[in-house]
Amino acid sequence: MKAVVLSIGTELTRGELVNTNATWLSEQLVELGLEVTEHWTLPDDGPAIVAGLRRVASVCDVVICTGGLGPTSDDLTAASVAESLGVSLATDRATLEAIRRRYEARGRTMTEAGARMAELPEGATVLPNPVGAAPGFAVTLGECELCFLPGVPHEMQAIFRESIVARVAPRVRRTTHQVHLRTFGLPESEVAARLKELEESNDDLVVGYRASFPEVEVKVLARAIDGSSAEARARELARQVRERLGDFVFGEREDSFARAVGEALRGRGWKLALAESCTGGLVGQLVTAVAGSSDYLLLGAVTYSNAAKTSMLGVSPEILRAHGAVSAECAIAMAEGARRLAGSDVAVSITGIAGPGGGSDDKPVGTVWLALALHGETWVTRHHFVGDRDAIRAHAAHVALDLVRRAALRLDPVDTWTSKEIERLERN
Amino acid sequence: MKAVVLSIGTELTRGELVNTNATWLSEQLVELGLEVTEHWTLPDDGPAIVAGLRRVASVCDVVICTGGLGPTSDDLTAASVAESLGVSLATDRATLEAIRRRYEARGRTMTEAGARMAELPEGATVLPNPVGAAPGFAVTLGECELCFLPGVPHEMQAIFRESIVARVAPRVRRTTHQVHLRTFGLPESEVAARLKELEESNDDLVVGYRASFPEVEVKVLARAIDGSSAEARARELARQVRERLGDFVFGEREDSFARAVGEALRGRGWKLALAESCTGGLVGQLVTAVAGSSDYLLLGAVTYSNAAKTSMLGVSPEILRAHGAVSAECAIAMAEGARRLAGSDVAVSITGIAGPGGGSDDKPVGTVWLALALHGETWVTRHHFVGDRDAIRAHAAHVALDLVRRAALRLDPVDTWTSKEIERLERN
Repeated sequence: MKAVVLSIGTELTRGELVNTNATWLSEQLVELGLEVTEHWTLPDDGPAIVAGLRRVASVCDVVICTGGLGPTSDDLTAASVAESLGVSLATDRATLEAIRRRYEARGRTMTEAGARMAELPEGATVLPNPVGAAPGFAVTLGECELCFLPGVPHEMQAIFRESIVARVAPRVRRTTHQVHLRTFGLPESEVAARLKELEESNDDLVVGYRASFPEVEVKVLARAIDGSSAEARARELARQVRERLGDFVFGEREDSFARAVGEALRGRGWKLALAESCTGGLVGQLVTAVAGSSDYLLLGAVTYSNAAKTSMLGVSPEILRAHGAVSAECAIAMAEGARRLAGSDVAVSITGIAGPGGGSDDKPVGTVWLALALHGETWVTRHHFVGDRDAIRAHAAHVALDLVRRAALRLDPVDTWTSKEIERLERN
Repeated sequence: MKAVVLSIGTELTRGELVNTNATWLSEQLVELGLEVTEHWTLPDDGPAIVAGLRRVASVCDVVICTGGLGPTSDDLTAASVAESLGVSLATDRATLEAIRRRYEARGRTMTEAGARMAELPEGATVLPNPVGAAPGFAVTLGECELCFLPGVPHEMQAIFRESIVARVAPRVRRTTHQVHLRTFGLPESEVAARLKELEESNDDLVVGYRASFPEVEVKVLARAIDGSSAEARARELARQVRERLGDFVFGEREDSFARAVGEALRGRGWKLALAESCTGGLVGQLVTAVAGSSDYLLLGAVTYSNAAKTSMLGVSPEILRAHGAVSAECAIAMAEGARRLAGSDVAVSITGIAGPGGGSDDKPVGTVWLALALHGETWVTRHHFVGDRDAIRAHAAHVALDLVRRAALRLDPVDTWTSKEIERLERN
């Protein structure tokens, strides 16, 4: 069954408000088993709305429309619906009563503007608003059912849950299921290359990618004769996708990378310390965005100046003089210093050049050294990240978290050397 | 001139991603003087895109389309554009070379998927991507100019700024000008109340608000007979708005709060140190997101555990025992400890309960103490922030930055007591 999400409001088309309603509604409709074939947003403009309603009613089975039901003069949705249907607006007595009671409960008298919200297209089915004044309503245009909801998110959501789900769900037959796998460490093109053959040899599989920098999300969509067969098939295909992507997959839909890192630490009973230079607290912010992170994060040192690297982490001035702050030696000393300071099991450090200034031929913008200190061994890795300052910092922070995750899960580190190997590399 | 913002991506129609691109683009287009008549979002579905392009090209002068230009099999935009125009896809040699160099700069060989990004509709004008691999392109369909951009926001924005503005702006006759003022510290309703009379007494003024949590942006739109008169009028009205909002205005459109704080520090020649508990590095991340922040930020201590508050900042165990980590005393000791550790002019500290767990009747979730240590005096303030963990942390980080900004600019601190006053408050 095909659905269109229609949004009405000049504040949307002028870019003054992000359209989160369309996203929320689509997610609910997809969850119910509908296919959302388009989002469409129109300004508060009567003729545009009338023409728009006629077009969308001809291309889908259900339209969910939000906005333009309030009490002000630019709320034109109900009148436009009436015009599209060739009927008049009429006051719905029960709705008028409900609005009057709402006003009285607040010690106020219903205004003319308030009463306007009870004027609905003749023949419309009222969808009561459990949390606000303006009700929703539903009409039929040709073969299409159109449901109209207020634009205020919590009112829209309440009416959707109370009235729309019951109207729509019985009409849908589910035939698809989707599994989302979240990955970090492979570029999108490499993920696609690894899954190409699997996708080509399974007609019922659609693989979608979403780059959510610096992560890549893989969506596995399976089709079958009914919902539970589709789910079983999607799960099996997701297993095969995991086989091909290995430990680059860190979780599913609702997981965050920082949460996956936290779970890995919790699994080992490890405590973490951070030493950040060019990321300036970003790794700490990501780790502590997860509720309960105080179970494993002890501290972070944001050592932005050289003096702070020495005073907080004990990086020797000789290292800074001989190799500079952006060096394997400094990264190693920072990680080991943070681990010592915190008395933690593991510590990770980041030092690099986020740009746009500060680069040189030898150490261009994007050069970042990261080190991971564990009991008995320190690992270090050099990256050259591309993009602007934000991108370089975001990428570096994810690599730092990945070092911690891989250590805690006993996975192979990626492109990482031990501090002893670095000594050899540097000597050669 | 009429514009349509077209977004392509199944992740949008399925509600997996909020369409912030359409909002950003609309705002830019309105700024350039265009009328945005609709937003339209279609899934990654070839026939739907082909039919869609034909419809939108017939209803407006300019289409800005994002999404579906990447290297994977569900990126169908270029092929659909070619089909709409009745032309073939052809490899653009210069683009292919640029993509190959991008791969090589990363020590990798260009993949087949990577090369696909250079396949553009014959006759299309390439819009180079200064920050990513997939370029944009522009074509003409009937009377309509259609510009295609990647869906990754920072790439889309970079191409828009570099290529689209110059293509579109000369075609528009401007009669409006908009000035954006960014504020922090007043709720939206209070901002609106302060500007009500100004708006009512100036017919050519439209005041818009955008809550960009925890900031409020005020948009001053003036209309006149031509662009330069409108600009002069908007500037004058913006001056009057600033008079009414005072030092709650920290900058204009492109300014960030952290940059305003940085400029204030630079103006005084002050160095900054940070001591963060519940924000876990967020303040440091905000400060260091500004290029050149190493001129004034010395260090940050993310003291998530009590032990770290003592070992890094010298907060005495007696304070933690007697008052707890979320207390005026602890906030004061953290700020003073950070200032001492860094040898900085100023230090700010944050300690609170971001939730969802950890609250009590006495100190509910959202309770945050912040302190500002200066030479000779420490100021402290208690807030009770509402919202979820992210909102509480974001709000607290902004208040911390505001303390620094107000001190550096010699403005009145808001709702802040000195440490001596706190002693009095606590005794009463």
